[in-house]
Amino acid sequence: MGVEARRAQLLGAAVDLFGHRRPEDVSIDDVAAAAGVSRPLVYRYFPGGKQQLYEAAVLGAAEELIGRFAVPAEGPPTGRLASALDRYLAYVEEHAPAYGALLGGGSVAETSRTDAIVDGVRRRAAEQVLAHLGVSAPGPRLAMMVRSWIACVEAVSLIWIDEGREPPRGELRDWLVDHFTGLLLVTATTDPEAAEAAARALPQETADSPAGALLARLAALAPATAHLLDPTATKP
Amino acid sequence: MGVEARRAQLLGAAVDLFGHRRPEDVSIDDVAAAAGVSRPLVYRYFPGGKQQLYEAAVLGAAEELIGRFAVPAEGPPTGRLASALDRYLAYVEEHAPAYGALLGGGSVAETSRTDAIVDGVRRRAAEQVLAHLGVSAPGPRLAMMVRSWIACVEAVSLIWIDEGREPPRGELRDWLVDHFTGLLLVTATTDPEAAEAAARALPQETADSPAGALLARLAALAPATAHLLDPTATKP
Repeated sequence: MGVEARRAQLLGAAVDLFGHRRPEDVSIDDVAAAAGVSRPLVYRYFPGGKQQLYEAAVLGAAEELIGRFAVPAEGPPTGRLASALDRYLAYVEEHAPAYGALLGGGSVAETSRTDAIVDGVRRRAAEQVLAHLGVSAPGPRLAMMVRSWIACVEAVSLIWIDEGREPPRGELRDWLVDHFTGLLLVTATTDPEAAEAAARALPQETADSPAGALLARLAALAPATAHLLDPTATKP
Repeated sequence: MGVEARRAQLLGAAVDLFGHRRPEDVSIDDVAAAAGVSRPLVYRYFPGGKQQLYEAAVLGAAEELIGRFAVPAEGPPTGRLASALDRYLAYVEEHAPAYGALLGGGSVAETSRTDAIVDGVRRRAAEQVLAHLGVSAPGPRLAMMVRSWIACVEAVSLIWIDEGREPPRGELRDWLVDHFTGLLLVTATTDPEAAEAAARALPQETADSPAGALLARLAALAPATAHLLDPTATKP
């Protein structure tokens, strides 16, 4: 086997192992056995040993995840967000122990390099979300809004895999999309740039898109909020 | 000076130093100098050295932060949330380098013990928020909602201190309260427990409470969403 092919084979074995277990549960012997080679051979290709393989595996996972964010710029924006989130959550589900170790904090294998890779994924995710809102250079408030929602998605994903993946993936996805829609509308009431983004996105939404369905359900709350809009109204 | 008094004095110096600098920028010599004692004396009281003092300082900070969450159960719930958040953000502002090091990840001083202390603060914050919603034993969806909002507050706080504390604290506080209100209303459209919590909270809100002001501003978005509620309406 050529040098490049062997390197790719070892890396493939490492990506697979580190992608499905916590880093402390993967040894160089596991990588060697999975690739059907000797332990010294693994070290010849990866002199940095387990840490080097782990960082390479995190980078490979990051590239796959970033690929999953890409959805065509067609149809209602909240429908696109649902597609991208669905693929993200499928990835989380499939790689739960590795995702938990990487993002849950306190992992011995975490380094400034793995932190930088994770930050790169967050940045790309934010760019994708903003691109679908028609924004390429966001102001501070809109940037903060998107980054905080992404932090929320991560926190929720960690809770989700920690608690037996309840609710089912589709329900979680829909709630996270609703969360985004709610946050955009709320932010649009004070930030002009968010207001413009909402004004561009809303005409692309339909009655049966996630945003349309959410607004119909929100409209049912109107009686409970009437006293806030018209102080002469009777309290619910 | 008695043993207990000396211990309290050293700990006070450590809390002050670790509370205002990153842990890597605090040495045992700094603690000794701040307390006006010798380096060996610090080690006599804290044989675990810097790490032991750091963990004690984090615990002291956690207790202070938890104290700041307590607000009387009076007035509109979103007004109470604004008070608690204001005190939280004041704390973050005052202790920015330490907060960033502790929660930003990648700190060499982070251990499973400091992680557990931070998790304890998050849990107490969630309990406080839920108590003001009249919930003591939340179901999974409502618990996930509150925890994800708290993750958002943390992420936003880190971005905020990273980017020169813009927007001003009051604006950030108001936006985080709006975020919570929006998230509760959105979640109430699918989760019965969140719907009950909203139904208990809304009658306590007034036209000039944060929730009342938000709903008035949201009402102004109605023309942009009319086509979602009535497909025969003209698009904006």
